[in-house]
Amino acid sequence: MKDRKLLMIPGPVEFTPEVIRAMGMFTTSHVAPDFIEVFGQALERLREVFLCPQGQPFVIAGSGTLAMDIAAANLIEPGDKALVVNTGYFGDRFAAILERYGAEVTQVKAPAIGDAPPLDEVEAALQSGSYKLMTITHVDTSTAVKADVKGLAAVGRRYGALVVVDGVCAVAGEEMRQEEWGIDLALTASQKAICVPPGLALVVAGPRAMEAFRKRQTPVGNYYADWNNWLPIMEAYEARQPSYFGTPPVNLIWALNVSLGQILDEGMEARFARHRRLSRAFKAAVAALGLKQLPLSADKEATTLTAIYYPAGVDRTVLGYIKEAGVIVAGGLHPAIKAQYFRVGHMGVVSAADILTTVGAIEQGLARAGYQFEPGTGLAAAQAVLCESS
Amino acid sequence: MKDRKLLMIPGPVEFTPEVIRAMGMFTTSHVAPDFIEVFGQALERLREVFLCPQGQPFVIAGSGTLAMDIAAANLIEPGDKALVVNTGYFGDRFAAILERYGAEVTQVKAPAIGDAPPLDEVEAALQSGSYKLMTITHVDTSTAVKADVKGLAAVGRRYGALVVVDGVCAVAGEEMRQEEWGIDLALTASQKAICVPPGLALVVAGPRAMEAFRKRQTPVGNYYADWNNWLPIMEAYEARQPSYFGTPPVNLIWALNVSLGQILDEGMEARFARHRRLSRAFKAAVAALGLKQLPLSADKEATTLTAIYYPAGVDRTVLGYIKEAGVIVAGGLHPAIKAQYFRVGHMGVVSAADILTTVGAIEQGLARAGYQFEPGTGLAAAQAVLCESS
Repeated sequence: MKDRKLLMIPGPVEFTPEVIRAMGMFTTSHVAPDFIEVFGQALERLREVFLCPQGQPFVIAGSGTLAMDIAAANLIEPGDKALVVNTGYFGDRFAAILERYGAEVTQVKAPAIGDAPPLDEVEAALQSGSYKLMTITHVDTSTAVKADVKGLAAVGRRYGALVVVDGVCAVAGEEMRQEEWGIDLALTASQKAICVPPGLALVVAGPRAMEAFRKRQTPVGNYYADWNNWLPIMEAYEARQPSYFGTPPVNLIWALNVSLGQILDEGMEARFARHRRLSRAFKAAVAALGLKQLPLSADKEATTLTAIYYPAGVDRTVLGYIKEAGVIVAGGLHPAIKAQYFRVGHMGVVSAADILTTVGAIEQGLARAGYQFEPGTGLAAAQAVLCESS
Repeated sequence: MKDRKLLMIPGPVEFTPEVIRAMGMFTTSHVAPDFIEVFGQALERLREVFLCPQGQPFVIAGSGTLAMDIAAANLIEPGDKALVVNTGYFGDRFAAILERYGAEVTQVKAPAIGDAPPLDEVEAALQSGSYKLMTITHVDTSTAVKADVKGLAAVGRRYGALVVVDGVCAVAGEEMRQEEWGIDLALTASQKAICVPPGLALVVAGPRAMEAFRKRQTPVGNYYADWNNWLPIMEAYEARQPSYFGTPPVNLIWALNVSLGQILDEGMEARFARHRRLSRAFKAAVAALGLKQLPLSADKEATTLTAIYYPAGVDRTVLGYIKEAGVIVAGGLHPAIKAQYFRVGHMGVVSAADILTTVGAIEQGLARAGYQFEPGTGLAAAQAVLCESS
């Protein structure tokens, strides 16, 4: 009997054995020639994964929130106006972070939980004020709502705002083309679709973001996040030179380089397609089981994550049953409806087998919770999508 | 032929197989019951390792510099006066960090590199201004100078300053008794004498520091470092409850808990004594080889680290020879004399065998660099100390 449960939460996700092996290597010096090579390579690969050939990557020990903090602290000066396109919990957080560094924040909020602000409302807001910066949460981990990053970025650019994308639950899973779409800064954390254990904040800043940083009149409000400290370090490692500001998280960076290599071996287009297909299979199962998703319409559903309301008569005790059936899924996160839904992450190295395993465990959990449905309905719906010729 | 070199730099240091195994475990959810237990235990153990039974521990993804940033951002309000006892590079850094959050910083600098500011000069400075906070670098990793933390903390307290100790190259190696010595906040990073790969900022704040934080009139300048975000999380994990602010670096925290357990199994008194004995053995070898240390007197020499001037006719190429002889040591770090010295870390799980191996490799390197000495002189001097009855 295998004891280990499948981890299908929105991060940490499942990691490959090669990544785990890199985590468990004896730690090298942060200025050892082989580590310098690995760090340099990881920076180069990050540019490819973000599809941002001219970007400046930053890899810094911290969580995804640090990555948001890095974006805000380096790009905002006191009094700057910032627009937050809010699709949930992490939009609220970005607003709080921007305000911390002195921004005057305007939020365009989704009309309801599960919805996203309409593009024309965002455009109206951009028209009415001159915003230095605009933030978009690509996938809000609290609601599984996906924003129309391509459309929003185009509008933001048209009105001269720096476009910042919180891609924490998205990068390397959701389709994102940083340079082509005009995104000035994109960020994520290691434990999501990047497939590395938690502990790394990852940021790629485009030329306009770096220029805005260089033109600052005031010091960056946050010392640890300050690009003045980190830029020379990233440049040095990429030039395969030793350098020091803070000791980099050596094992995590070895693991990052392994994972980025695996991501690029698959190829970004194939990876986007796999995520779309597996998400469609999982969501087909959810629908076939008569369950309702949090996002109000299909175009707003994330491909990395599904948020599902508990059906009538079922509550979070079902999560324990699903776990006993072998799969760990996550509870709700959005404060307003936390107890009413659960979340399933399906990003990174996720496979068709993982989808079937997860649907199977959810069916078993629901049955045990007394929910009425024909066992196998979800599996059959998922399988129908998985058997489509691609 | 074993390929792996012994890592004798001032961090990352050598780690135990158990710690490395924890790093390479399949990652659990950050709210899994077993991880909650591990995180809670690690927080309790941190209090014991810092000898601060009433302290509030914080474990946050980041480097040692983040730990310094956390101390400054949470304790300083704009206009506060801060005194930095400067013994090298990391004193300069603390001053820069404190200024970032609006402190008016006064520095008492060592009269020369390798020296520490005299206690009476620090007292005179404290007398002349009303300082909210005073920082001490326990061991400056750039110079291997150890400050008299006990004496300085007593003086700082007498004048009402919060005493903050940068223990990055010290905690769990150098003797430090946070509560008994009246230290209000002590901090370190995982990759030093705590013996966990880099990626964790570790802070223990005493009651006076927490009180100063609670009495703030202005928001904390740094969002990611803000205790308002982290305090509820640390309290929740210690109460064995799930909670979320940012995803904790799961593998590093598993490894931390393993290492803290090993540290406490040895016992803090035994650990301090071992560090003293091995440092004395290594420094006896250095002296017997006719090499000069950076610290100007024995009472200012760190026990976790030794900084050694290259003898006449020898430069940093000797570090390559030492490496080929099997041991990695570090170059200089203090900007003013960077090319004139090297550094050997001997902290954490360091053993008598490591000391002999290191002295042996240094002798071989020096011989190859053309330095004149009787081979074995260093080894014999170290061995004399190691054979003393303890």
